[in-house]
Amino acid sequence: MKAIAGLAALFLGLSSASAGTNRDVIYQTAPIDALMAGVYDGVVTLSDLTLHGDIGVGTFNALDGEMICVDGAFYRVPDDGRVAPASGTNRTPFAVMTFYEPDLPLADIGAGSLVELVETLDRALATPNAFYVVRLDGAFAYVKVRSVPRQTRPYRPLAEAAKAQSVFELTDVAGTLVGFRSPPYARGINVPGWHFHFLSADHTAGGHVLDLRASALRGALDPSDALSLSLPRDADFNGARLDADRQNELRQVESGRK
Amino acid sequence: MKAIAGLAALFLGLSSASAGTNRDVIYQTAPIDALMAGVYDGVVTLSDLTLHGDIGVGTFNALDGEMICVDGAFYRVPDDGRVAPASGTNRTPFAVMTFYEPDLPLADIGAGSLVELVETLDRALATPNAFYVVRLDGAFAYVKVRSVPRQTRPYRPLAEAAKAQSVFELTDVAGTLVGFRSPPYARGINVPGWHFHFLSADHTAGGHVLDLRASALRGALDPSDALSLSLPRDADFNGARLDADRQNELRQVESGRK
Repeated sequence: MKAIAGLAALFLGLSSASAGTNRDVIYQTAPIDALMAGVYDGVVTLSDLTLHGDIGVGTFNALDGEMICVDGAFYRVPDDGRVAPASGTNRTPFAVMTFYEPDLPLADIGAGSLVELVETLDRALATPNAFYVVRLDGAFAYVKVRSVPRQTRPYRPLAEAAKAQSVFELTDVAGTLVGFRSPPYARGINVPGWHFHFLSADHTAGGHVLDLRASALRGALDPSDALSLSLPRDADFNGARLDADRQNELRQVESGRK
Repeated sequence: MKAIAGLAALFLGLSSASAGTNRDVIYQTAPIDALMAGVYDGVVTLSDLTLHGDIGVGTFNALDGEMICVDGAFYRVPDDGRVAPASGTNRTPFAVMTFYEPDLPLADIGAGSLVELVETLDRALATPNAFYVVRLDGAFAYVKVRSVPRQTRPYRPLAEAAKAQSVFELTDVAGTLVGFRSPPYARGINVPGWHFHFLSADHTAGGHVLDLRASALRGALDPSDALSLSLPRDADFNGARLDADRQNELRQVESGRK
């Protein structure tokens, strides 16, 4: 009986430990500077990512399309724009994940441009010094998205590879916007400021968001007070030149300028 | 019996989960840029830190001395140089911890200066792109250490506060050197390159290391492939201006130049 009581206590301990797990952690598979330097093959699978969240953005090995994860389901946007579900065995060199919790609900969000949306979201933040994910659902009058073509070795830096991006302009499309915001001190590890991916409600269109126009979006901001960065351990990552300041290249890539 | 078997499986699961825990994680209580900006009060206690490691460096609330943790024991070096054990209830605004594992043993390490030691350690790294802790024990011919005076509000930036540092020159002293190395992409979050604290074997002297001369040191490098950054959630941190690039100030503070 004593043993059984001990086991019961263990169960109680387990469930309370589980309840205490911090789900407000932003998880990354690699620093953004490695992707910028052309480290395009990772060992982390999408199945691995589900341990760290149910919402996320990223890319695939060989830079083969934009990745978006909504409600734990992963989608790939290849550079021909034909979106498809991505299986758990797919690998990624760079992904950012967290567990979505609608802590700060947002209703009736409208924006004439991506810049305007960023201003609206930034005004809603408790502090610019934490990490955030935002999810916004609704009807978008306009979304300009891009994807990047699959690369072959030897890999070029992202600022070069992204010049061959495909751009798609979507109009009157229902869908979901997923955005991550990193504080300025995280430059080198993630994209400072906001970084958005989009998925249409019918799962046929999406990508990295360059611009948008929408009204009456609804969703929430979810602040995170912790960052968990994993590092690749392979020769590509270990040998990459990561000592350059790539902030200018990063702004160019994020904004889709060539 | 089935229930018991289930419980046994649970135990097995537990012990394997425990064995699989990644101890090669560098844990931080805050980004270095917050300390640079004058966020000198944290809520994390030294007892909290023991969950994340048994070796570490940092400071105390109000910037009241340099912190060093060796073999799970914490010491404070106040600016009068009188080293004392630090109790678990002490709080810290900035600390870096990990579990020390002597993965890459180092023997007969000598250096005519801190710069020379850094060159020797850097040559021993598998890659400059991971995080490392090093521990080196032995007889030091010379160690130049500093500590900083307790601050009062309103707090000034660290580059200002550190100008009032106390410098101590130790000769022929046995002791332990603890150093953390962060990759360049982690600038803003930690100190890029090496950052050393020293504790004498008799626990009477130590501090942030500015220079040294030693021979026949022994110890090990311990690489880490993960970073876990926690963020403070108080008004000081939330309101801090963290959008400046403080790399020049950081180099000045680290090197002890005024």
